[in-house]
Amino acid sequence: MTQAFATLDQFRSILAQAPTADLETRKEAEARNGQLTKPPGALGRLEDLAIWYAGWRGDARPQISAPQVVVFAGNHGVTAQGVSAFPAEVTEQMVLNFQHGGAAINQLSKAFGAKMDVVALSLDTPTADFTQAPAMSEAELVDALLTGWNAVDPNADLLVTGEMGIGNTTSAAAIALALFGGDAADWTGRGTGVDDAGLETKTRVVAQGEALHAEAIKDGLDALRCLGGRELAAMTGAIARARDLRIPVILDGFICCAAAACLEQTVPFALDHCVAGHVSAEAAHPRLLNALNKAPLVSLGLRLGEGSGAALAIGVLKGAVACHSGMATFAEAGVSDG
Amino acid sequence: MTQAFATLDQFRSILAQAPTADLETRKEAEARNGQLTKPPGALGRLEDLAIWYAGWRGDARPQISAPQVVVFAGNHGVTAQGVSAFPAEVTEQMVLNFQHGGAAINQLSKAFGAKMDVVALSLDTPTADFTQAPAMSEAELVDALLTGWNAVDPNADLLVTGEMGIGNTTSAAAIALALFGGDAADWTGRGTGVDDAGLETKTRVVAQGEALHAEAIKDGLDALRCLGGRELAAMTGAIARARDLRIPVILDGFICCAAAACLEQTVPFALDHCVAGHVSAEAAHPRLLNALNKAPLVSLGLRLGEGSGAALAIGVLKGAVACHSGMATFAEAGVSDG
Repeated sequence: MTQAFATLDQFRSILAQAPTADLETRKEAEARNGQLTKPPGALGRLEDLAIWYAGWRGDARPQISAPQVVVFAGNHGVTAQGVSAFPAEVTEQMVLNFQHGGAAINQLSKAFGAKMDVVALSLDTPTADFTQAPAMSEAELVDALLTGWNAVDPNADLLVTGEMGIGNTTSAAAIALALFGGDAADWTGRGTGVDDAGLETKTRVVAQGEALHAEAIKDGLDALRCLGGRELAAMTGAIARARDLRIPVILDGFICCAAAACLEQTVPFALDHCVAGHVSAEAAHPRLLNALNKAPLVSLGLRLGEGSGAALAIGVLKGAVACHSGMATFAEAGVSDG
Repeated sequence: MTQAFATLDQFRSILAQAPTADLETRKEAEARNGQLTKPPGALGRLEDLAIWYAGWRGDARPQISAPQVVVFAGNHGVTAQGVSAFPAEVTEQMVLNFQHGGAAINQLSKAFGAKMDVVALSLDTPTADFTQAPAMSEAELVDALLTGWNAVDPNADLLVTGEMGIGNTTSAAAIALALFGGDAADWTGRGTGVDDAGLETKTRVVAQGEALHAEAIKDGLDALRCLGGRELAAMTGAIARARDLRIPVILDGFICCAAAACLEQTVPFALDHCVAGHVSAEAAHPRLLNALNKAPLVSLGLRLGEGSGAALAIGVLKGAVACHSGMATFAEAGVSDG
């Protein structure tokens, strides 16, 4: 396979030239929406979702028949700082669980008719501890971005990116702090469940990492290199590839949104093909969604990662598109339109 | 078929003797939930939903494989007061649309694997205008309740009740006012889209109806008879039958919840087998959900009725149950549990 990009600057160029939604199709979809057998606006946000989806797919009466869920896994050097309630071995154990079909994301993917892929990124080689050095070299970051880029099925018509990586809420919090400012405490949450002392440590580590790399960080991709992890970078690459292919994306929780934010903070509007699947119970996720100007589809207190909240929202998007494309018009049904 | 009940008092007796959830199964399901490969509580409300569902089904590791959506349609004498933006003929036109597969609820039922039934109740004989007389006689109410009762498929494992009936938000508002007090304006909304003058008329009609029947209304079923409609009563009957069969119910919007409230205000805890599917854009729905102590699963600004919001929430419940019943335990997967 020819590599889509070999340097970070080549990746930046791709982002800058990314395709946009088809405005003509959007207009056609809006017109169709106005003729469907329902009072105007009665399907609420489902109507906006269907029109948005139609515009990205370039099809005014689209179907969702091939959603793809990709779960990326990586290990983090920063776990040496005692930021997680679980040992780093759990990353690999959970990868096996994904491969054997035993995790939540397996059940949700099946329930919503999505194919699911699992990609483990160099689990034996954690990223560097970002309190000591940049998490990744440029070459390592490019590799991880490419892994994500290449993981997207060009025939998918909807993408969910999920993750597993002990320590990765710490990485995500540091990225969010670097990109959006504020205090480390604003962005640091309990992840899989650290106690009060653990949260204090984690907050300090996030602040320390951001301070160490602040000068080197000029855009989202710098933040990803200095503070990210391989699975975050793979999500970033996959979300960019989905844009390239005009495949709409449902964003998952805090970590996925931090990975996505690295695109938005490199090239504005880079996430126009993305919708927020849910708002998680991770404390800073609402703040991050707000920074990205995304309103979640579902709010059910999930804080698992893996793509689980986004996978749940596949159902909402499928419902929206099914109504839009399947409903009769007033004329077709012989219904008076008020 | 032997009639399950022939009088309103017989129906009241059935409600008073309704089955409850199986507490042993609930405990088993809670124990299983604690062993699944995720941090404790990380699936948020999905965990509670699955345990609740398991308890009602008496199966600690249940499946949802046969959801049923039933849409009831009725006409309302109160439309003579000019309370709706649409003419009453639309009820029958929409019934044809349901039968031909063209409505939103058809698409949502299909998207979430539910079978859908449509039951039109005496569309040629609207209920009486409740500003002049009780909407229904006891015999008419019992008939409508029985229609709903008999519409539930005993083999269903999940029920959604939907409705279509021009004028029925007025009926629902009057019921809510009668059952929960406050001002008519607290419970009256724009329905399918009345303008400011229409809303004023509607509010006055709601107040007038409630005032006329206040003395006659001793419980929820009295309110249903005096202020309800046939499709509301059929929903009430169907929700009661689901309880009888221990089939969990997803409640839809304002009208469905008003119909359900008639059970809760006749026999406390009569809605313990029900979950609120969504909160609609109808102004008083949040207030009504609050009165019923139900938190919605989804909030996407729908205000269509038909069961559409509840049907959308089938996906959430299916996802919850799929995780609960399909996930591996820590022991099965060899994952360290922190």
